[in-house]
Amino acid sequence: MGLLMFYEYLSRIEALIEKHDDIGLHNYLDAMHAADIAEVLENLESDEQRQVFGLLTDEKATEVLEELNSDDFSELIKALTYEKKVTLLDLMSQDDIVDKLNELPESRQKEIIAFLDYEDAADVKDLLLYEEDTAGGIMTKDYVSIQKDYSIYYAIETLRAIAPDAETIYYIYVVDDAERLVGVISLRELIIASPNRSVESVMNENVITVNINDDQEEVARIVSKYDLLAVPVVDNGNVMHGIITIDDVLDVIEEEATEDIYKFAGTSDEEVYEHDDTLFDRVKNSVRSRLPWLVITIFGGLLSAKVLASYQTTISANASLAMFMPLLAGMGGNVGTQSSTITVRNIATHMIEGADILRTLIHEISVGMLVGMFCAIIVGTAALFMHAEYHIAIIVGISMCANMVTAATIGTIVPLIFKRIGVDPAVASAPFITTTIDLTGLTIYFTLATMMIANL
Amino acid sequence: MGLLMFYEYLSRIEALIEKHDDIGLHNYLDAMHAADIAEVLENLESDEQRQVFGLLTDEKATEVLEELNSDDFSELIKALTYEKKVTLLDLMSQDDIVDKLNELPESRQKEIIAFLDYEDAADVKDLLLYEEDTAGGIMTKDYVSIQKDYSIYYAIETLRAIAPDAETIYYIYVVDDAERLVGVISLRELIIASPNRSVESVMNENVITVNINDDQEEVARIVSKYDLLAVPVVDNGNVMHGIITIDDVLDVIEEEATEDIYKFAGTSDEEVYEHDDTLFDRVKNSVRSRLPWLVITIFGGLLSAKVLASYQTTISANASLAMFMPLLAGMGGNVGTQSSTITVRNIATHMIEGADILRTLIHEISVGMLVGMFCAIIVGTAALFMHAEYHIAIIVGISMCANMVTAATIGTIVPLIFKRIGVDPAVASAPFITTTIDLTGLTIYFTLATMMIANL
Repeated sequence: MGLLMFYEYLSRIEALIEKHDDIGLHNYLDAMHAADIAEVLENLESDEQRQVFGLLTDEKATEVLEELNSDDFSELIKALTYEKKVTLLDLMSQDDIVDKLNELPESRQKEIIAFLDYEDAADVKDLLLYEEDTAGGIMTKDYVSIQKDYSIYYAIETLRAIAPDAETIYYIYVVDDAERLVGVISLRELIIASPNRSVESVMNENVITVNINDDQEEVARIVSKYDLLAVPVVDNGNVMHGIITIDDVLDVIEEEATEDIYKFAGTSDEEVYEHDDTLFDRVKNSVRSRLPWLVITIFGGLLSAKVLASYQTTISANASLAMFMPLLAGMGGNVGTQSSTITVRNIATHMIEGADILRTLIHEISVGMLVGMFCAIIVGTAALFMHAEYHIAIIVGISMCANMVTAATIGTIVPLIFKRIGVDPAVASAPFITTTIDLTGLTIYFTLATMMIANL
Repeated sequence: MGLLMFYEYLSRIEALIEKHDDIGLHNYLDAMHAADIAEVLENLESDEQRQVFGLLTDEKATEVLEELNSDDFSELIKALTYEKKVTLLDLMSQDDIVDKLNELPESRQKEIIAFLDYEDAADVKDLLLYEEDTAGGIMTKDYVSIQKDYSIYYAIETLRAIAPDAETIYYIYVVDDAERLVGVISLRELIIASPNRSVESVMNENVITVNINDDQEEVARIVSKYDLLAVPVVDNGNVMHGIITIDDVLDVIEEEATEDIYKFAGTSDEEVYEHDDTLFDRVKNSVRSRLPWLVITIFGGLLSAKVLASYQTTISANASLAMFMPLLAGMGGNVGTQSSTITVRNIATHMIEGADILRTLIHEISVGMLVGMFCAIIVGTAALFMHAEYHIAIIVGISMCANMVTAATIGTIVPLIFKRIGVDPAVASAPFITTTIDLTGLTIYFTLATMMIANL
């Protein structure tokens, strides 16, 4: 599997294209999974793309369209005959169509919606109205719903008729006349139940739902917590509007994890490129998403310079003090990042509240104190070996320990405060914390140095 | 949902316990989801835990056991009667039992296995042998398999009989006499197919599988890529050993994301605590996982001190040079972290190979150059405003730009090299990159300063 497999697929397909062996190519594609075909297509030229795509069965072609990125999807659709467009778009699942359309310009959205049948077109237009990262924005309207007075036998027959179109048939939702959700039956329960019983007697009335305006992260949390294969989406009046399936939740979790990692590094997940972006577009994009953080760092750095300016006499007289500045700054930064990462991640996954705040703080300060003392001894001793003056070694050692305790405290408190005032701790913490720690660290170091040297 | 709901559950249950209202409590629990009951139980005292747990039906009690952490699971099992132990453990799914046992001491593992029936005990002992983070370590042996010469009708009947025990019935696996995997049918296809056809004529022969020794991250990648609800686990001879269901894959993805984020911050995911760890245990744990990174940073910091020692005359004569050291170090560190995070994440998600290496490098260096020039102008101008000497401003500006290009280059190349030599780029990059950038930055700055000042 993996990369090797991909290159094998790609080279085999390119060879078959070159030999004009359409039958061989058709058979080869038939044995491939749609996700692999899509991956290969995204790496072919447009004319080769069209040639390969034309050899797929309707069912496979639909699955491939679902897996493709928006641009290749849009290009391939454009090249099809009217009948083919209508057939394939009808077979595609709604949420995948909406995903692609969300990335395309509005004029192109309209062109594609024009090939959908009346009902699908209405659904898709409706789905496009929701924010992309909410339950409404990732749901599909292709679900199976029945009435509670059906028999199990009749429910299975209904299911058999609807199955080919539905996004999942593993849950069947029970609704009343006003489309309000009143129960759910899993396919498993349906299969096991006696055919003569009523749906109402078998269904589970405690349905776990998400609200149509819920953030996609909340949806992921609920699906993951309750081990669901799909979750129904309802409005405030408990009217059912759609479902979100677990494969889309997987995508959400991966997306959010990447976003979090990028936030920690002081950039954004906007740095995801389409296959045909130019180098210039990409560089421009990267500069735009990274610059804000760097400007904040510049501001912090200039403040540090200002602080240092006031200790210029001490530095001139004791140039060896400057030697240990990178060491102190590096250690403070590290300890602060460790504490803030743990705190931010705890906020994101466990929800720190009430008594936990104090417990987290005591924990982080204790850790800072212990590692601080340990590092102070190492660094103080090393300073003695590198430099004869014993008072410099003492200043460096004490500052090191004090700086690390301060860094741990700031790294823990800042994300908690940001959370409290409603600012995303993952985004805002990094530059703010680093800058603050740099400033407090320098102040501790030079205040101590000035005091001790004056008393010599 | 969420936190508010949890406190509501907890206070209602505590109130019912206090009133000794067992019937009310039983009814209240009956309407709750097992995952919520488990969350509440983990926050109750042992005697209350036992009281609440005793009021659950067998089915609910089993689900709650599956959701509990290992320690509470072990404690609650201990308090049950012999019959109850056997009943509940028999109902639990194998992979959940294995998950709990993996966290418990070997003697306790043996005690619990003693209550399993012969077949389950053999399976569980077998599963405990696999590494925890491989396909074998997270799979279950409770799957449905049939022979290819069955009719669809007979296959559905078999399924109906096995369903209550199986982990998932949404895929039915077709095996030959030697248990080699030859095909798969989804329940959906089974429901739609005509009952008279043979399994062989309906089954899909291109089964996507994972190897029993595959890393759990690879399993997650495959389940996510091919949108599977479960994936069969086979050995090198294609003999089927178990399945991994998507709910376990969700847990893997969350676990790996947390691990990656912690790695970036220079700590490890070992910092996950059990409910009853003491503060001392936790602090000890944190110190142990964070100290290695700090020691590497100390080493880097001492190297910086060594480099600075050789420029001591320059610093003594131009104390204002020291003012801009934190600024330069901070900016270099930021740019390096941004580049390395993007590179590490690209390696993890897209697989950078061949031509991509050069493209990534050109991209990152271009970004470094652009933001470098921009920041050089701001910082140079600011330096002029803060400090009269124009040559210092020029030195700071040029060093800033050169430092940022170097930082971007190092941040991109180091993870790629680590990947090539088989070291996890996420773990090793951070301290190594920061240290290298600090050293190159200082060298550029003071070499330039010494040269320019000598030529004045």
